[in-house]
Amino acid sequence: MTEPADRTRRPFVLDEGIAILTRTPAALDALLRGLPDGFIAAHEGGDTWSPYDVVGHLIHGERTDWMARVRRILESGDAVPFDRFNRVAQFADSSGRTLDSLLDEFAALRRGSVQELAALRLTPADLARPGLHPELGPVTLSQLLATWVTHDLDHVTQIARVLARQYADAVGPWRAYLRVISGQPG
Amino acid sequence: MTEPADRTRRPFVLDEGIAILTRTPAALDALLRGLPDGFIAAHEGGDTWSPYDVVGHLIHGERTDWMARVRRILESGDAVPFDRFNRVAQFADSSGRTLDSLLDEFAALRRGSVQELAALRLTPADLARPGLHPELGPVTLSQLLATWVTHDLDHVTQIARVLARQYADAVGPWRAYLRVISGQPG
Repeated sequence: MTEPADRTRRPFVLDEGIAILTRTPAALDALLRGLPDGFIAAHEGGDTWSPYDVVGHLIHGERTDWMARVRRILESGDAVPFDRFNRVAQFADSSGRTLDSLLDEFAALRRGSVQELAALRLTPADLARPGLHPELGPVTLSQLLATWVTHDLDHVTQIARVLARQYADAVGPWRAYLRVISGQPG
Repeated sequence: MTEPADRTRRPFVLDEGIAILTRTPAALDALLRGLPDGFIAAHEGGDTWSPYDVVGHLIHGERTDWMARVRRILESGDAVPFDRFNRVAQFADSSGRTLDSLLDEFAALRRGSVQELAALRLTPADLARPGLHPELGPVTLSQLLATWVTHDLDHVTQIARVLARQYADAVGPWRAYLRVISGQPG
């Protein structure tokens, strides 16, 4: 039996994308605010990021990346490529800040982004407009917005995974059953 | 340079575990309540679960599994194995229910579980008490509680991943950068 395509894939629909973008700050707030410091600073070893680092990264994207790229497409189409994104800016930007203040800032910035995005009243023709990614090449506004949504969710999975893996030893024999620890594909 | 162990692994500490267990219902509520039906019913193909299915599974665990196993250990130690858990009960239990009612029920059940757990005032000696898993064999109460926390977080990653993968096509060339879609290890 084949799966109906509408349960494993969806086309990007502006209102639906906005519905998810709107929810991310509250979801991260519910998950993280008030957690013990050790969990906030937890990571997966090496250069991997902690929940604290991820929230800083989301703030930097909100400030410099997502809506700036939307505006670039609307103003210049694919004539001017997007500016490159600094994936490690948060290590300087977040320095000395509390997680609570980062969560507050992310929520405020996201509220502003969503308001600006909604106010553009993008049409289907707008969503099909081309942009130019400095590495990936030709993209569309619709693909940019779907990526914004997916990028949020990717970082939600990352934060929950980082927290879960702190107990990779503490769960004992159960580690075999916990895909988030065993690393078995979902 | 070796990583300090305290950033990649933590021992189970009761108050910290409770801090995460307490947050899960609000995190899922923030992520899911009011999302378009198509996202609620979304899955990853085959027998994989939708966000709706996962919330039903969490309810069933709350009703029949986690605190029941805590009580089993405290009452019988490893003399009586845990009852087996029905991993597909939610398909009957959730039938006809709205997601909102499932989210409400999960939040209420979890509140009760956490209150009961806190009221036990478990000591370090209690946390070391042995239990018997029907398949995994000898476990401890501490491992059971760490698993409960990790199981929550595993399903948070699952829900965010299922939502994200709905846009696996919609993101276009960006799919190469999005680990939640490309399946690259975190």
